[in-house]
Amino acid sequence: MLVRVLDGHQAFPPPIWMMRQAGRYLPEYRTLRQKAGGFLDLCYTPELATEATLQPIRRYGFDAAILFSDILVVPDALGQSVRFAEGEGPVLEPLSLDRLDDLDPTVVGHKLAAVIEAVGMIRAALPDETALLGFCGAPWTVATYMIAGRGTPDQGPARKAALLDPERFARLIDVLVAASIDYLIRQLDAGADAVQVFDTWAGVLDAAEFERWVIAPMRAIVQGVRAKRPSARFIGFPKGGFGFAERYVAQTGVNAIGLDWTVPLDVVRDSLQPQVAVQGTLDPMRVVVGGRALEQGIDAILETLGAGRLIFNLGHGITPDADPAHVATMVARVRAATATG
Amino acid sequence: MLVRVLDGHQAFPPPIWMMRQAGRYLPEYRTLRQKAGGFLDLCYTPELATEATLQPIRRYGFDAAILFSDILVVPDALGQSVRFAEGEGPVLEPLSLDRLDDLDPTVVGHKLAAVIEAVGMIRAALPDETALLGFCGAPWTVATYMIAGRGTPDQGPARKAALLDPERFARLIDVLVAASIDYLIRQLDAGADAVQVFDTWAGVLDAAEFERWVIAPMRAIVQGVRAKRPSARFIGFPKGGFGFAERYVAQTGVNAIGLDWTVPLDVVRDSLQPQVAVQGTLDPMRVVVGGRALEQGIDAILETLGAGRLIFNLGHGITPDADPAHVATMVARVRAATATG
Repeated sequence: MLVRVLDGHQAFPPPIWMMRQAGRYLPEYRTLRQKAGGFLDLCYTPELATEATLQPIRRYGFDAAILFSDILVVPDALGQSVRFAEGEGPVLEPLSLDRLDDLDPTVVGHKLAAVIEAVGMIRAALPDETALLGFCGAPWTVATYMIAGRGTPDQGPARKAALLDPERFARLIDVLVAASIDYLIRQLDAGADAVQVFDTWAGVLDAAEFERWVIAPMRAIVQGVRAKRPSARFIGFPKGGFGFAERYVAQTGVNAIGLDWTVPLDVVRDSLQPQVAVQGTLDPMRVVVGGRALEQGIDAILETLGAGRLIFNLGHGITPDADPAHVATMVARVRAATATG
Repeated sequence: MLVRVLDGHQAFPPPIWMMRQAGRYLPEYRTLRQKAGGFLDLCYTPELATEATLQPIRRYGFDAAILFSDILVVPDALGQSVRFAEGEGPVLEPLSLDRLDDLDPTVVGHKLAAVIEAVGMIRAALPDETALLGFCGAPWTVATYMIAGRGTPDQGPARKAALLDPERFARLIDVLVAASIDYLIRQLDAGADAVQVFDTWAGVLDAAEFERWVIAPMRAIVQGVRAKRPSARFIGFPKGGFGFAERYVAQTGVNAIGLDWTVPLDVVRDSLQPQVAVQGTLDPMRVVVGGRALEQGIDAILETLGAGRLIFNLGHGITPDADPAHVATMVARVRAATATG
């Protein structure tokens, strides 16, 4: 059903899945994570990545599974080693723009063979009606971590690098575009029904920089993949970039745009949904809180966006403090909805 | 000239000032700050607050001075004591919504007498042609600090409190609305030509919450002040809330809206400028970087927004790592601009 929405059809109730649906809010995930050792061991062991991917499908029957992995496996495969420190998020050795020649995008797909193997195993294990989503990080967002070596409040180090030395920064982005094209094609060939490109840090750029580092690389990825796999389906998620959403959609050719929770739903309905499927937009905090706050949030989305092309999702990943019972409530409420929108 | 733009006229080159123009990027500020002792001592000593306010005016001749103070003097006056830890930002004892009865908005204006005295001293010292801006934090943003006790990546504690217990959260907002009205009236009476209301954390709310905690309180403040001072001029700055900017302007009655740097300039020109004066929108990182990045950023704003009602400013406060020489370059370039927009 999710694939049909990406292909231009409308469905009500809408298909539903959740960003970070395989994650720490689930007790079975925490058990698996403990067994695996490090976070990247989980990503790089196909059986474990498959199990993590399937856990939320078994529990909730979501309409889509998303490959269990991380956007930073690409820099890891490029040779900039990544580790996940407990409670700190990812840590990388900060990249200097002097050392770009060390980065070889052609090795990424090969080095990530274990991830591609997981995609095949997951597709084989999933019910036919459940879509499988592959993904990667968008070049800008991946670059922000590569430059800063970690997450920062507004990714100032990469913003500064891009303004100080746009030519060399463009070379880094080009490397990431090439690696992403290869990596996504392999995911599609292994069984992914569509791919999502996460630009989590799109929202820190001004208009000129957004055009150059978010829209242009995304267009290059979509065109590069479709040059070889013409029917490839894309969900773009330029988080925080709502002011540029219309031009992002028009210029990149995505099948759906992911939206965070800070968007005016009526404007989305009037100006975006006629162009493209939209995905989101529930505030993850409403899933944490539950009760009336959760119900009102769900109902507002269904009422305003339910008559158009919609993939129900949160506006960002579910957080570890969310109660799994609230997720069950959400799925039931969306599925019980009757078309009043 | 800034006042004329707030009153509905267009000016080119536009008036210019900078958020946080009295701040750590200036050596003379760092000297003053050291002499003062604590940050709040600087805010609460009228002679020192006056000196801090005037420093950037002497150096750059900005079209507006803004009272040197902090948005957290209001919770401090309400009895929730605030301290500024070096390199950490503000720290407050987190407020429980059980203890709202301890907060008395009627004492705020009186307790902040030293700040009001500074307003009068600054107005007396400023050239006539330099506008003086007073300010306060918007209720939502001040509440996020009161609840969390500090800044957090997405002010989750206040978002959670507002969803869990909206009735009590509304009482906190009401206290802050009442305190803000009294405080802003005193600033206007002491000589402020206009007041800016900073909603730095407006951008973390979904549509329903933005309406309730950003727009409605701002409308109440504007109406409450104008009920007693009908000609009061307001600049509203709902940072990160671009998707709601049109309704914010229409529903609050502000004279100008402050915009951060992540906005589509052509949409601002076409949909906002016909309704209201706009203030911003230069990425503060362009002032840090200088050179071509700074020139291009300035020129894009002047070319796209220069033909409408514009107050040139940064999209957020100038950062401590900015070179004062870059600020001089910026002022000169804006003032040398000829109308091509």
